[in-house]
Amino acid sequence: MFSMTTSTSSLLGKQLSSSSSKHLTKEQPKRHDKINVKVAAMSNVSRNPNMAQLRAGYLFPEIARIRNAHLEKNPDAKIISLGIGDTTEPIPAPIVSGMANAALALGTVAGYEKTGGYGSEAGQQPLRDLIVKRFYSEKTKINASEIFVSDGSKCDISRMQQMFGPGRKVAVQDPAYPAYVDSSVINGHCTGYDEKTKRYENIVYMECVPGNDFFPNLEAAKDADIIFFCSPNNPTGAAATRAQCKELVDFANKNGQIVIYDAAYAFYIENPDCPKTIYEIEGSETCCIESCSFSKYAGFTGLRLGWTVVPEALKFADGSSVRFDWNRCMCTAFNGASNVAQGGGLAALSDEGWKSMQETVGFYKENAKMLKKTFEELGFKVYGAVDAPYVWVDFDGRDSWEVFTEILTKTDIVTTPGAGFGPTGDGFVRMSAFCHRDNLETAIERLKKEFAK
Amino acid sequence: MFSMTTSTSSLLGKQLSSSSSKHLTKEQPKRHDKINVKVAAMSNVSRNPNMAQLRAGYLFPEIARIRNAHLEKNPDAKIISLGIGDTTEPIPAPIVSGMANAALALGTVAGYEKTGGYGSEAGQQPLRDLIVKRFYSEKTKINASEIFVSDGSKCDISRMQQMFGPGRKVAVQDPAYPAYVDSSVINGHCTGYDEKTKRYENIVYMECVPGNDFFPNLEAAKDADIIFFCSPNNPTGAAATRAQCKELVDFANKNGQIVIYDAAYAFYIENPDCPKTIYEIEGSETCCIESCSFSKYAGFTGLRLGWTVVPEALKFADGSSVRFDWNRCMCTAFNGASNVAQGGGLAALSDEGWKSMQETVGFYKENAKMLKKTFEELGFKVYGAVDAPYVWVDFDGRDSWEVFTEILTKTDIVTTPGAGFGPTGDGFVRMSAFCHRDNLETAIERLKKEFAK
Repeated sequence: MFSMTTSTSSLLGKQLSSSSSKHLTKEQPKRHDKINVKVAAMSNVSRNPNMAQLRAGYLFPEIARIRNAHLEKNPDAKIISLGIGDTTEPIPAPIVSGMANAALALGTVAGYEKTGGYGSEAGQQPLRDLIVKRFYSEKTKINASEIFVSDGSKCDISRMQQMFGPGRKVAVQDPAYPAYVDSSVINGHCTGYDEKTKRYENIVYMECVPGNDFFPNLEAAKDADIIFFCSPNNPTGAAATRAQCKELVDFANKNGQIVIYDAAYAFYIENPDCPKTIYEIEGSETCCIESCSFSKYAGFTGLRLGWTVVPEALKFADGSSVRFDWNRCMCTAFNGASNVAQGGGLAALSDEGWKSMQETVGFYKENAKMLKKTFEELGFKVYGAVDAPYVWVDFDGRDSWEVFTEILTKTDIVTTPGAGFGPTGDGFVRMSAFCHRDNLETAIERLKKEFAK
Repeated sequence: MFSMTTSTSSLLGKQLSSSSSKHLTKEQPKRHDKINVKVAAMSNVSRNPNMAQLRAGYLFPEIARIRNAHLEKNPDAKIISLGIGDTTEPIPAPIVSGMANAALALGTVAGYEKTGGYGSEAGQQPLRDLIVKRFYSEKTKINASEIFVSDGSKCDISRMQQMFGPGRKVAVQDPAYPAYVDSSVINGHCTGYDEKTKRYENIVYMECVPGNDFFPNLEAAKDADIIFFCSPNNPTGAAATRAQCKELVDFANKNGQIVIYDAAYAFYIENPDCPKTIYEIEGSETCCIESCSFSKYAGFTGLRLGWTVVPEALKFADGSSVRFDWNRCMCTAFNGASNVAQGGGLAALSDEGWKSMQETVGFYKENAKMLKKTFEELGFKVYGAVDAPYVWVDFDGRDSWEVFTEILTKTDIVTTPGAGFGPTGDGFVRMSAFCHRDNLETAIERLKKEFAK
């Protein structure tokens, strides 16, 4: 779910001065030559102070900067990216033809009548039904009215922040997918940024390290309103066990938090002791929202399709329904996922599509295991990679930026420094399994050559 | 841009008690039978007080309720909808095949490499370039770096509110597309709702009536931060002239407002005295954001594709760039429009696609004119319909709900009561031109029969 596009383009260090920006140029503002009235040079509208607080930007454009500098020095370098969590394999044939048919149907009167105009903001009913059938009916009580189809997890997370409103106390795993913190800053949950600790005030950072099996001490979040929890985790690749999930759910129910459970990688879980949805856990329906995505299962990163589960049993402190407010937010801030993408979702959940998704996920899982094996053979401690498409390599407390640069310089491979996901991520580097096999094999050769201990 | 799906599903009158809701049922919350720990019946998270302030919901579900009651009494009624602003005609063939090809390409390695993964949150560069070429290059200085492709105007409006942050003074035309006010309420711009005036406190309602040529007295908005201005207007169908647009731009530049100029229906303009984009007006680049959509041009309501223009010259009071903050917001709250929808956009802006869009718009415009003629022949004063797909019929100050009910009862035609768009809309009924021709002809016959004066 984390992607370099998010990072490089969203987190620009300085206004209009970053040469790595795709959207912003150094051109001067254009004005018409003849102006008849007094034209204000700028509006009287003050800048949103929350926007001014966004800081993480200093970190990520740095990746692009260093990569570009490396390419400039070594113009023939054949860069391989294990950095971006962006799918590389084509969308499987049965899904692609489902989408093409959904598109073609919009050219007919009957087809347009069926799926052409505004749809329900919560998604097409057959898709909501199929999501329940494929992901929830076996082990949970979730029903289709609790499924809200959307254009993806990142977008839903931001709309959730809008629904909760400003001034909430938010807890995140550290390290974590940067969108949790960024959307918290934009929506007014943070009071300031501490340069020394690299942390925002009023955000609870729950450390996830090998020493605690990447499952945090939840007590730190006792006073939080919202807990973001991602499993299988981006970036560490750790999947929470049933017992850990139970601990999380019990904690939230006891202390009254709402957990936003990010399950975007759940399909990658192979450990039978790790639930594939939080709703397998008793009591989860009174404290958990679950956010899911087709992105990493079927190569839908660019197609934009996901869903969020908001159980009927989830209530605010006044007893009012969270699902009701979520529905109103979605209906005001959203207009439904693209009907053709929903056609793709329907095809992905057909028997043929489901099988092809398993194959695609299997391919990336194989990649992850090849990377894990490589680093283990090289003598590193390696985490993740079994239940997730991310490999979290322990570089013995070394500065992760330094390691990132060393890998790039020696092997022309782009990774992501762990510090990019939060201060506790330092000392680690994340490798993504989203890569063509031939590129991965070349990358592994290079790594073996340069990083033999 | 206004749609009944927006209204019926978003604006529910009472929590979980509305039988017209698509998403919410009366089922009781489900709990697991065996619960090992003390489970809180509800979270400790307080409800966002802004959400609790949403009121408009009392109005719109009423349309569905009355319609359903009518159908229950008259089960054989052949209802014709002129209510919803939702396109009815199939997407033209060249656009549909462009989309199908975009979908099929995602099944190949080369195609996936090109458009398959995460794209720029601001849209594919060729699409941004084509939007400039088709809509801006001839008469404005807007360039592609100022174009942000999105999943539609409604979604962008909500993200803009998030960017501006809470506590802004917002001015809207009255009547207006309900999403301006609803998103203002959700994002904390409103302090309360006055049942008597049917208006939110802290929102400036600028009356648009025949007496002022549907162009408001802007002085009311002198202290506002943000002015929402829609032209051609939904629901009145009025397109602002060049002189009126100049007045708006000069006013905003003088007083420091930012104008969110909603041009979702600009393609419908035929009056040469009305600009098709606000950037035809001198000085607009220092005060205007423009929001646009493919929805009503190519039948993309369900496909979700639009764009927003944020000029480089637009600055906050501290001189910082609005475009910079918009880009950061889009990169955090959004992940790009669906790549297949963007493929549809590219096809729509090809020579063949452009011609087919003109034909589709021409078809709906013909519908609008047929409706206008009908009501004029019946002796009503009729507005709109020439530069917009909406016909705004003056019912001589009669209660618009009463008129709505009368039309439904007598003719089985669903319209939208003007009061649904704001208190000043009362006395009017909006008819939408989005309708199959045969249905429209039947509707006209019925209207002629029942409403001869």
